[in-house]
Amino acid sequence: MARAWHLKSRPNGMPTSENFELKDLELPSLSEGQVRVRNLWLSVDPYMRGRMNDVKSYVPPFQVGEPLEGGAIGEIVESKADGLQPGELVQHMSGWRDEAVLDNAGANKLPDLGVPKEQFLGVLGVTGITAYFGLLDAAQAKPGDIVFVSAAAGAVGSVVVQVAKAKGMTVIASAGGAEKCDWVRSLGADQVIDYKAGPILKGLAEGAPKGIDVYFDNVGGDHLDAALAVARNNARFAICGMIEGYNDPTPASFRFIQRIIAARITIKGFIVLDYFPRLGEFYSEMAPCIASGAVKSRETVVEGLEKTPDAFLGLFKGENTGKMLVKL
Amino acid sequence: MARAWHLKSRPNGMPTSENFELKDLELPSLSEGQVRVRNLWLSVDPYMRGRMNDVKSYVPPFQVGEPLEGGAIGEIVESKADGLQPGELVQHMSGWRDEAVLDNAGANKLPDLGVPKEQFLGVLGVTGITAYFGLLDAAQAKPGDIVFVSAAAGAVGSVVVQVAKAKGMTVIASAGGAEKCDWVRSLGADQVIDYKAGPILKGLAEGAPKGIDVYFDNVGGDHLDAALAVARNNARFAICGMIEGYNDPTPASFRFIQRIIAARITIKGFIVLDYFPRLGEFYSEMAPCIASGAVKSRETVVEGLEKTPDAFLGLFKGENTGKMLVKL
Repeated sequence: MARAWHLKSRPNGMPTSENFELKDLELPSLSEGQVRVRNLWLSVDPYMRGRMNDVKSYVPPFQVGEPLEGGAIGEIVESKADGLQPGELVQHMSGWRDEAVLDNAGANKLPDLGVPKEQFLGVLGVTGITAYFGLLDAAQAKPGDIVFVSAAAGAVGSVVVQVAKAKGMTVIASAGGAEKCDWVRSLGADQVIDYKAGPILKGLAEGAPKGIDVYFDNVGGDHLDAALAVARNNARFAICGMIEGYNDPTPASFRFIQRIIAARITIKGFIVLDYFPRLGEFYSEMAPCIASGAVKSRETVVEGLEKTPDAFLGLFKGENTGKMLVKL
Repeated sequence: MARAWHLKSRPNGMPTSENFELKDLELPSLSEGQVRVRNLWLSVDPYMRGRMNDVKSYVPPFQVGEPLEGGAIGEIVESKADGLQPGELVQHMSGWRDEAVLDNAGANKLPDLGVPKEQFLGVLGVTGITAYFGLLDAAQAKPGDIVFVSAAAGAVGSVVVQVAKAKGMTVIASAGGAEKCDWVRSLGADQVIDYKAGPILKGLAEGAPKGIDVYFDNVGGDHLDAALAVARNNARFAICGMIEGYNDPTPASFRFIQRIIAARITIKGFIVLDYFPRLGEFYSEMAPCIASGAVKSRETVVEGLEKTPDAFLGLFKGENTGKMLVKL
């Protein structure tokens, strides 16, 4: 019998382990075109918090009493699908569980790029795709730009830092605590601001005395306000996430919102799904960067299906450096 | 002796008549390349409030004790400049005074488009240029779009309504009070929301049940937040002004800022100066619209140089319908 984490109740503010329940899940026998997979790695991501609210968005909300979903890598253990063989590894969206039945269309065979398979949930997966297209397309970042990246020790932020450096940009990064800051510095960031050591506006004004051309936002709130304050003319902001607001119903307030006008700032929200048609471009650019060591991958690994909610909750406490993963 | 309004002190919050002083201004005799003009019409605009703060922006701040500046139309009374003759009308930036000495480069002869001269401070001037390029370029509004325009009874907003209708868009407009709303309806707006009659979010949700593709922002604050709430996927916001915040130091707060991500909203601030190289395009599109009556001009006229600060202060009390002008 498979086991899956279910949404027991909708979180109100910060989620707790009480919102989740691990239950048996009866899987059907395979129909034509389906495979059964045993999951090896599960992804937990901040965006999942949004799906726990009963709000229409770009993906439907999770339903109370139903299994949760998310990125995962599994091994095929049984197949009635053409072109998919037992033993092959696939990436899919039926995470938060140990076993799943997938339609052929939802099971994506991992390309053979010679990297550890879990990286397809990180730097070569949705995380990397988000960082790559958010920086280069949504924010239109160009060589020579001064780029500010928040949550730079996180999964997406740490890839943004490295892609920006590989493309000849100056990188100002923020992270929480000395250890994370050291790691971000080791990735090549030119200036690293410890946002826990003082107001981010002060840190950013000192770290980027010439201002910024690009802001890659993973945080929102005070970070976004500080970026507005120091933006140069024609600055571009790519809004990837606003983790500061996911569990806090207080409206975000902005002292520097009017600078949008005088500095001609463009702020653009984006969703990684919109870039899936350009995956070929992503693999051909990123795989060599990873092979050469120009872009490094780092994971924070939690072991065991039982720990999946803990891994997820840890995202909001800054417990991960790099990509947070669950290993089954 | 010329007379000019000077900045007596910097306003703290809402400006008052105490911040302004009408004083004699000794003008130099003409050098080669200069003209002397007698001003006939002065423009007062919300953006001038920003220049009264001691803050670096896209134009330098006004200085305490110095004359104020702004758009004006004057008649040449003396000329040492090639191609500029006494009796000719010019548009220039030495407003807030009755007489001025201008360099040739700062005196722009009015093109002969067969419209009343004061319209070159409104629908055919900076006001119209702002509306036209803000809507069609900054917001990339297209035929068929649902466009929300705030302060639609104001100078810029009323032109946006008319250009949007002329281009085949659906227009949702907001204005303050029944009389202004009636006028905006007469300009062709499909739905008009009286923001003084209830929360703008409620009005907008009812007035635009299918959401909005474009928001032309003259107000900021709650209007901007409501637009975020109802924006459809890939909506574009052009931020022209945020009059709600010009006199209020309270940081603007936003309940719906996170929708930038899920709805892939693009928010773009713009400055009309950046579009001056495209004035030819503007005149060739707008002059026929005005001649045909597709775009109408309306002015609120205050008479006498002495009343210039009153006209300016009236902008923040909603005293103008259409463009606020001072006639000398």
